[in-house]
Amino acid sequence: MTTEQTASGTLVAPTFDDVVAAARRLRGQAVVTPLLRSDAIDAACGGRLFFKPEVLQRTGSFKFRGAFNRISQLSEDERKRGVVAYSSGNHAQGVAAAACQLGAPALIVMPEDAPRAKLEGTRNLGADVVTYDRYTQSREAIAESIAAERGAIIVPPFDHPAVIAGQGTAGLEAANQCAALGVEPSVALVPCGGGGLIAGVATALTARLPGIQVYAVEPAGFDDTTRSLAAGERQENDPGARSVCDALLAPKPGDLTFSINRRLLAGGAVVDETEVATAMTAAFRHLKLVVEPGGAVALAAALAGKVDLAGRTALIVLSGGNVDTETYRRMLG
Amino acid sequence: MTTEQTASGTLVAPTFDDVVAAARRLRGQAVVTPLLRSDAIDAACGGRLFFKPEVLQRTGSFKFRGAFNRISQLSEDERKRGVVAYSSGNHAQGVAAAACQLGAPALIVMPEDAPRAKLEGTRNLGADVVTYDRYTQSREAIAESIAAERGAIIVPPFDHPAVIAGQGTAGLEAANQCAALGVEPSVALVPCGGGGLIAGVATALTARLPGIQVYAVEPAGFDDTTRSLAAGERQENDPGARSVCDALLAPKPGDLTFSINRRLLAGGAVVDETEVATAMTAAFRHLKLVVEPGGAVALAAALAGKVDLAGRTALIVLSGGNVDTETYRRMLG
Repeated sequence: MTTEQTASGTLVAPTFDDVVAAARRLRGQAVVTPLLRSDAIDAACGGRLFFKPEVLQRTGSFKFRGAFNRISQLSEDERKRGVVAYSSGNHAQGVAAAACQLGAPALIVMPEDAPRAKLEGTRNLGADVVTYDRYTQSREAIAESIAAERGAIIVPPFDHPAVIAGQGTAGLEAANQCAALGVEPSVALVPCGGGGLIAGVATALTARLPGIQVYAVEPAGFDDTTRSLAAGERQENDPGARSVCDALLAPKPGDLTFSINRRLLAGGAVVDETEVATAMTAAFRHLKLVVEPGGAVALAAALAGKVDLAGRTALIVLSGGNVDTETYRRMLG
Repeated sequence: MTTEQTASGTLVAPTFDDVVAAARRLRGQAVVTPLLRSDAIDAACGGRLFFKPEVLQRTGSFKFRGAFNRISQLSEDERKRGVVAYSSGNHAQGVAAAACQLGAPALIVMPEDAPRAKLEGTRNLGADVVTYDRYTQSREAIAESIAAERGAIIVPPFDHPAVIAGQGTAGLEAANQCAALGVEPSVALVPCGGGGLIAGVATALTARLPGIQVYAVEPAGFDDTTRSLAAGERQENDPGARSVCDALLAPKPGDLTFSINRRLLAGGAVVDETEVATAMTAAFRHLKLVVEPGGAVALAAALAGKVDLAGRTALIVLSGGNVDTETYRRMLG
């Protein structure tokens, strides 16, 4: 393992230039996802909403961006030794696809109750998968032990500058697309688990759109970032909490991500499962997009009025679409 | 009504330049839908497939393109008198949105058993809706009588040069997007009802990609274009036929559309309901797109090997995504 991975407390936040450099690395590799909108959703929220659908990204979520940005900066020798990641599924698939593209073997530590679509997707991308019990075992410990054994490099799901900078390219793209349309969002809602996506997106957006308010949206029971922002220091979630938003179940904010988010975010918002189901159904009906529960929380907050968007231009990130047919059928209202 | 609408036999096929002119009119009005792909679907078909997802178009299908191109060419006086259309739903919504945008009142004649999503969508766009019985009444006769009464202009669903040229902009965009990526499809699969979309798309694609084979894909029971192409003259469907592909239930090819399609198409392919369900599920899983049954037939033909895509670069049009939650739940395998 490199120093960066063992001593994340000393890691330095990526700058806007790091996001720009990540975008250069991702050119021709990541999908430039479009900016979409819907008259019906605008009418429901009373604002003008622009959606960044990372469900259309490679592997069905934004995670490919950060994984590719990290792995593409490894040396030839490091790539040969391979990469290890722990993930409930989206980061797993992002790392598997990026590693495969860059010729590095990948091993992913995944919870045994991860959605089948994510377990299968990861294996189909050529990665080895090791499963663990989400509620009794430490995925970090398993990953670290395997990485040490193989001399492999860990690609952390959020708490790493290169990962955060990579995720930030979604925000940079959105800012560029808004500029091309001549619109200037004054608020952005972004799903938040460990906080890597929103840290990167906020780095890009606040540089390009000074004064924009960026809100973290979290599922009930996993509102650690919302509470941490209010408290001014990192708060943990109740270990007994459960949520259908399997992509957003980090136990607490990352060290590096929170240091960025406390500086750049306007606040947090929390949505419940019914609000998430309403959002998934609105995305089905009005955007024709398959959005997974965790990917729909920002739209859920918009539709439930958790952040008032009346009369405002807003950017909403739909962060992923990897959901089983059974869960999707159940959530579709 | 204008001469164009009463004597469609004398209508002249749109040229490539007409499609280019339509694209100019649609600039800033229609969504430039992206070109998407999936490693998993490529692996299943053995080819390199590029998808044109018109589910992301305004009103959830390609129909906005043709409707806007037609209505935007009406005089001020004609627009004031309003437009009338008959449609199972996608054309209805396309006409309603285009008319609203251009300040023309719209009345749509729709089958009473059209999907609720389409009936509601049309009304929500501000159009008046008159329903009829699909199996006993003539929608053309009802529309013509209302149009005559109001002095309104009929916007036909497919058999009109301006409508065909408008739909063709989807093909023109796809050709431009392929060129930007440096890829040259040798085959295109396009859903076919009355044949307006494929006539326009084939006009654009055969001009930009000489030698490309364009195939019409139809649902079982509504294979009129496939049989007509084989017979060299227009064939009708059995009036007793039924299909889940509600967007593709035209009784026979259009006069004008068939005159274009017999000249430009390589042939037809037919898919059954199980194949359509498989395609809708593949779009859900691998593209994260909600595709309605009729919109998924081209992907169904690709996955079922109805047109061999092994080793080829193919363009696949996903023409619409307006489907009820109940139907979607049932089709999701």
